[in-house]
This record gives sequence, C-alpha cells and structure tokens, in this order.
Amino acid sequence: MEPDDTTLQFDSNGRLRHLLSLKGLSSTLLSKLMDDAENYVSIPGVLPTRSNSLAGRTIGNLFFEPSTRTRASFDLAGRRLGADVLNLDVNTSSRKKGESILDTIYTLQAMQVDIMVVRDASGGVPAYIARNVQDHVSILNAGESDVSHPTQGLLDLLTIRQHNADFKNLAVAIVGDIQHSRVAMSVSEGLQTLGVGELRLISPPALAPDANRFPGAQIIDNIAAGLKDADVVMALRIQRERMGNLEGIPGIDEYFTNYGVSHENMKHAKPDAIVMHPGPMNRGIEIEGTLADGPRSVITKQVTNGVAVRMAVLNRIGKMMSGR
Amino acid sequence: MEPDDTTLQFDSNGRLRHLLSLKGLSSTLLSKLMDDAENYVSIPGVLPTRSNSLAGRTIGNLFFEPSTRTRASFDLAGRRLGADVLNLDVNTSSRKKGESILDTIYTLQAMQVDIMVVRDASGGVPAYIARNVQDHVSILNAGESDVSHPTQGLLDLLTIRQHNADFKNLAVAIVGDIQHSRVAMSVSEGLQTLGVGELRLISPPALAPDANRFPGAQIIDNIAAGLKDADVVMALRIQRERMGNLEGIPGIDEYFTNYGVSHENMKHAKPDAIVMHPGPMNRGIEIEGTLADGPRSVITKQVTNGVAVRMAVLNRIGKMMSGR
Amino acid sequence: MEPDDTTLQFDSNGRLRHLLSLKGLSSTLLSKLMDDAENYVSIPGVLPTRSNSLAGRTIGNLFFEPSTRTRASFDLAGRRLGADVLNLDVNTSSRKKGESILDTIYTLQAMQVDIMVVRDASGGVPAYIARNVQDHVSILNAGESDVSHPTQGLLDLLTIRQHNADFKNLAVAIVGDIQHSRVAMSVSEGLQTLGVGELRLISPPALAPDANRFPGAQIIDNIAAGLKDADVVMALRIQRERMGNLEGIPGIDEYFTNYGVSHENMKHAKPDAIVMHPGPMNRGIEIEGTLADGPRSVITKQVTNGVAVRMAVLNRIGKMMSGR
Repeated sequence: MEPDDTTLQFDSNGRLRHLLSLKGLSSTLLSKLMDDAENYVSIPGVLPTRSNSLAGRTIGNLFFEPSTRTRASFDLAGRRLGADVLNLDVNTSSRKKGESILDTIYTLQAMQVDIMVVRDASGGVPAYIARNVQDHVSILNAGESDVSHPTQGLLDLLTIRQHNADFKNLAVAIVGDIQHSRVAMSVSEGLQTLGVGELRLISPPALAPDANRFPGAQIIDNIAAGLKDADVVMALRIQRERMGNLEGIPGIDEYFTNYGVSHENMKHAKPDAIVMHPGPMNRGIEIEGTLADGPRSVITKQVTNGVAVRMAVLNRIGKMMSGR
Repeated sequence: MEPDDTTLQFDSNGRLRHLLSLKGLSSTLLSKLMDDAENYVSIPGVLPTRSNSLAGRTIGNLFFEPSTRTRASFDLAGRRLGADVLNLDVNTSSRKKGESILDTIYTLQAMQVDIMVVRDASGGVPAYIARNVQDHVSILNAGESDVSHPTQGLLDLLTIRQHNADFKNLAVAIVGDIQHSRVAMSVSEGLQTLGVGELRLISPPALAPDANRFPGAQIIDNIAAGLKDADVVMALRIQRERMGNLEGIPGIDEYFTNYGVSHENMKHAKPDAIVMHPGPMNRGIEIEGTLADGPRSVITKQVTNGVAVRMAVLNRIGKMMSGR
Repeated sequence: MEPDDTTLQFDSNGRLRHLLSLKGLSSTLLSKLMDDAENYVSIPGVLPTRSNSLAGRTIGNLFFEPSTRTRASFDLAGRRLGADVLNLDVNTSSRKKGESILDTIYTLQAMQVDIMVVRDASGGVPAYIARNVQDHVSILNAGESDVSHPTQGLLDLLTIRQHNADFKNLAVAIVGDIQHSRVAMSVSEGLQTLGVGELRLISPPALAPDANRFPGAQIIDNIAAGLKDADVVMALRIQRERMGNLEGIPGIDEYFTNYGVSHENMKHAKPDAIVMHPGPMNRGIEIEGTLADGPRSVITKQVTNGVAVRMAVLNRIGKMMSGR
C-alpha cells in the first residue's frame, strides 16, 4: 500500500467508499461496522437476516486467486441484501486471453457492476484498481497477497469483542506464519486502532515479521511466553511447503509441539481464553483438532460473523451510493 | 450405509429430514412425494411452476464429483422454490488446500446454508455428513459412489407410475452395469417398497451385482429372457473403460447386440413397454439412438420429473424446517 | 450457415424466435432492436434499468468456448429482466462424459430452460441446435467460430448509430484479422442491411477475407487508404499466434505500425471519427493503449450497449413467448 491508500478509502464527504485495509479506519468506524454486523448475525436454525438495501445493485466477485470460503461469504452477504452477484473466476478466461486487469475492470464497470470484490495474489492490486475506477464504483479487498484482508480482520475483531469488549485490557496472541499472513496484518491494524492492551506475534524466527510492519506488537518466538495469560489465541494457517525450511523444525511434529495451538500450550493462556483460526485449518499442524471442535473454540462463530461483517460493509457502501 | 442410516433420515417426529437413500422410506411417503411432484410438473412451453416456500433459505450444492444434469436440476428446483442456491465446485478450491470435508461442511453451516446437496464418489459420505451436522441442517444425497442416488430413484418411480400406477402387476427390467450402478440400487429399493411385481436385473455375468444387495430381484444374464413381457425397460450407462474386461464381449458391437436396449431386443418386451435411461447416454452402446428418440422413450420425461421430485423433496424439507 | 438459416430465425408469424445471425434481419427490425436497447441504457452510477418481463423464465448460458465478457453480459441482461439464469460451463462436465450436444440440449429443454444462449467454436452449431429444439424454445448465438456473433454486431450498430445515425453517409473501416472474425461478419451484415455508405475491410493480405463473404465491401491492405476520411474505425483482436505467419510482418512492431489503430494512423480518418474494439484488447498490437482510453474511444460504451442490446433481444423473445 502506498502512503495515500488510507485516504483513498474515503469519499470527499469522509464516508467509506473502498475497503482496502483496516489501516486508516477510525475506532469509531470500526465500532459502527461491528455494531451493524451484530444486527445481521442470526441464530442458527432460523432464516438468515435479510434486507433489500442493495436491490438492483450488481456486485462482481473477482477472484484472481481461488477461494471457497471467502467467495461464498461475500456471495451470500450480497444476495441476502438483495443484490445481483456475478461470480467471475477470472483465472479461467480473461487472463488466458492476456487482457490487462484494468480492461477487465473497465468492462465490468461499463456493465454497471458498481461494487467489485477483489482477491489477488499480488500486493497493491486492490488499491491500483480503486485508483482507476469511476467515481461511483467501490472496491472491496477480499484478500491481497500477504498485505491485507480487511473483512477477515473485521470479523476477527467482532468475534473478540463478543468475548470481551474491553480491548484495552486484552492480551491477544497470534501464532504461526506471521510473516506471510494478511490475516495477521489486518487484525493487528484493527486491534491497534481499538487500543488493544497487548498484541503478541508468536512464530519460529524464520517466520517472524518485519517489526516495522507491526508497530507496537511484541515479536516472540517462545509459545509459552507468548501465550502467558493471553485472553485470545489465534492460530494461523501454515503452508506445508514452508515446513522444510524452518531452522530447528524438522517436521510437522516439532511444529505442532513448539507452535501448535494445542490443549497443552493453551495451559499458559487464561482459563477462559478463546481459540480462533481463519480457516481452512490444518488440524494436527497449527491447531489441535479437538481444541478446534471444543468449547474454547470460536472458529465457527468467526465464519458466521464473516457473513455479518460483509453485509455490514456492503450495506454501508450501498447507503453511501444511494446518498450521492 | 450403516444399519442406522435409514432411521437417521427422520427427525424425532418421524418427518423426513435427510434424504440419503430410498431404503427406509415407506410406501406412503414415496407416494406422497410423487403426488407432490406431480404438482410441480408443468407443460413444456408454459412458465415452470414456482412457489416461495423456500424463500430466504440457502441451499448449498456441494458437488465433489462433477455433474451438469443433476447439479442443474437441483439448482433450478431450489430457485423455483425461491431459495438462494450456492453452487460450490469443491474440487477446485477447498480440497486443494487440504481442508477436511467436515470443516467445509461446518463452514457452510456457520453461513446458514441449511440444506446441503452432496454428491461424492465415496460411499458413506452423505450419511457421515448427516451424522455430524447441527440439528437444523438437512443433507440430500445427489449421487453417492455405487451406493445410492435417491432423487434419481424417485424420478424413475414417478415416471413409471405415470405409465402404469399398478406397481404390483409390473415387470421392470434394468439392463447394463448393475454392479456399479447407484441408479439401479435406488430405483430397486423404491420399487420393492412399492411392491413391484417383478424386478429383473440384466447384465453380463461380470457386471452382475451381489444378490444380497438386491433382495427379491431376479439376476439374469440373457436379455431375451430378461425383457420377456417387461412393462418397463431401463438401460444403464456403461463406462467405456469397463468394456475391455467383459468375458465374451470383445467390444461395443457385441455389447450392443447382447445387452443394448435396441428395437430388436425390445421385441421381447410388452408392445406398450416404455424405455428409460438416467442419462447421459452412450448412444449405440447401451441404447439405440432412434429408440431413445422414439415414441416408447420416456427419457426426457424423466428429466422433467427430476426437477419436480427435487422440488417436492426440498419443499417437504423446508416445511419441516419452518414447522420446528 | 445453410441457405435456410435466415428464415429459421422467425416463427410462423414472422416474429424473431432465434437469433443466429444478423443476416435476414430487416432494417426495420434492426432499428427496433436498437430503439429498445436505448431504453435499457442507463447512466453510470445510477441503478441499472430493470424489468420483470422474463420473470419465471429460465435462460441457460451454454458456453462450449470460454468467455468472461459475453457470458457476464448475457447473465446480467437476463437477471435484470427477472429471469433465472443457469450458467453451464459445458467443457467441464457433460462433454467429458461423451454426451452428444443434442442430448445436453434435450436435457435442458426438459428442465424448461426455454432460452438457450450458445457459444461454440464450431460453425453451424447454433443453427443445428435451433433446428432440433421444441417449438417453444429459442436459441441465441453468443459467438460461433468465425461465422457469426449477432449480439456483438447489434451492439456495434447501436454504438455507431449513437455517434451518427445517418448510416447512408458513413464510411466504416474495420481493421485487422478480418478472415477469422465473427465480429467483422456480423457487423458487416448489419451495416449492409442498414445501407452503410462505405464498408472497408483492412488487413494484411494473408488475413484478408474471401470477398464473397462480404458482398459490397472494399477489401484493402493499406491502412492509410483504408482509414481515409473514415467516420468509424473498428480494430479487431488478433491472436498472437497468427503473427509469425504474416508475409512482410516479422513481428508485433511491424503489425502495429502497418495495421494498428494508433494516433498516427487515425490522422487519415475524419477528425471526429470514433474508435471501436470488441475486446478483449491486445494493447500495443492492434490498438494503441492511450487511444483506447482517450476521448475518441467508444469502447466502454460498446460494453454498456452490449448489456442493453442483449436485454432488448431477450425481452423481444420473451414477449413472443408470452404471446403464443
């Protein structure tokens, strides 16, 4: 993200127009989005909450990187607000033909796809698109390289707030491949804005992040120290390919012992600490299966909150559009 | 299917909750589903029958095995009842990332996908999922290995009933690769429940089924004997790969002569016997093209009935859900 | 297309039933379709124009050849008229199983998919399907080999008319790989029906078309001569693979110099001439990027008009269906 990306997110009246990053969103705005999202959360077994606030509006899901979970979550969020959702798996068509990404965007824009949800493996793509679309178009970042995943960050904040709204007195520990994690970036940005008590980033030294990217966080390589009296413990997905290159970690068993979020390691955390994971999980590697399925886990709550925060963001964008 | 799978299909009030197999569905329930389906059948050229009985409900189509026809049929059935239908081609995303099937299911469940339509190449998957979902979620089997394909069975029953409702006096002949056919299994289960007069399973000896799987059926390897005075003749799809391994059947011509449903072989059946095929057809192998297109064929009727029975099942599940 | 294909497009009352080609559509009908389309064009930033004229109707998008842009355009056009749109990427399922194209069509027909939008890499496929469907089914050609792409032709006509409705006094120049272009074919057919003043087809000799396919057009190999005082200049996409085989054109630079639609070459055209391209573009090969993005370009207008003409065609077909 270039320096001006945070201001790029707002229109001339200071209203949220693009969601590229949680950086630059005020504590007030984050709280409002969470409040709105709470209205969209409904009890399992009843009909999902709906509205028609986006009726007639077209949302394009442009996933240049495959995803089931985030794509489905945005798809349902849009449809439950009455929008038409166009799902484009862009790998399989335009890019084959060598069309530039902006030409794909201009085409959709000309079809009145006014909200575009973009996921891309390269950093900077959502902001690049946002800088080039017409004034009436909004871009939502649905996962960007190792840089940003703001709706994931928002759903994590909401899930933490549901456990304990007193961010200033919370110790949040994120464990795993911090260096390559857009999830860690976005939730950290949001937590700092909300004034989190302590933010601890725990990883093997080889996967530790550049400290400059996480101002105010503690970078820790010992899980016992990192989880000590933590209120919230978030495991991150690790790609199996990385495992072979980690110093002192010859394999999965060592990774699980030293950096897995397990019943054993959770003994260091507070007794009522919650366990989070953004999914999809590698059970037995970065998280213990029975812990993920147990009472401390809020992992499925995160998924439910994911649809709700996406509805909240889409609804706010839609209201901004109607208010023009 | 494990012994308790048939009871697993019903809720504590004895109402249909999951549809995993036709085994365990009473004659009364099968008839009710067929009666309901008749209400959804409409004349070609008019607008398809619709209702809003599933409005606001989300159906997930989880096809772990590719399919155009069954996927489209469930998709249209759901939409014509007013549901949101989420199509997930699960091969291309989650499974690549090594996520377990239950974690994919839990994720959808947390997004309030309350009805999941599952097709899988492995036996036992739909029941396994049904045993693990929350109480308010229903699983519909859309094709399971060589075990079960209950909505296909239902549409076949309905198509037969439209020809002649007097099941007790009917001779039904199923011809082809019985051993590997989930279609043969499901329609046989339903026919036995409805007290079919005679059920004949005709195949080369190498493709004959285990007799225990088809109690009450006659297993026959001679097509003339098998089709003798039959009222209904159903051809099954054969995979070309199997052809090379059949004793006494060096190739396609021999298969067609000995086990093809052809004008020639149909001379043994009753003059008004109908011809069925679940599709997709290998014309000139298991069925003669001009017979499939001729007046005795009810193959396109089967497709029309397919949408109707899926609407009937979905509507019943939806009513059960609303009645909780 | 066989001789009778143009009449095949109309029902017994002379109303448009299939859209296979612009050949055979009268000047009056072309103008009506353009008039109707104008009603569907809306200003960027407002909600897209909608109606419910196809409510309850099912449209099937059968793309045997991949496409993002045309598929999305038909999808949105159908949904904005209230239809259910079923997207079938037919490569990935039925064809794998060896089902014949007609059996796929018969299956969809039996599911009451009454409008089928077909894109295929082989010539003759849409007409072949149209000849074999039931009386109440309509086929729309969404791109057929190098033969026909009638909705693209219509959107081009509309875009030209928006610039200057006086077709009789217009000089239209189409530049590029004319020989393999279904876009050139369809727009040429329409322009001739509307009595275009001059139609010039400009290409390297190796990519020049058979003159019999373009009666009344001038076939030109010099771009300066071809663009001289032209009112409309349409660049065509060239496949990079073709480049190596063109006499006197060793590479991209020579192609761009001699046949690219560039600021330099546009000096030969009228000062207010517009620049068109059907997309997806190869910037720097057949068209100069800054020209495509500049004030003379109507390329994004073409895309907007694309949704509008497809809505106009679908709406007309829908009215014909309801009027039966």
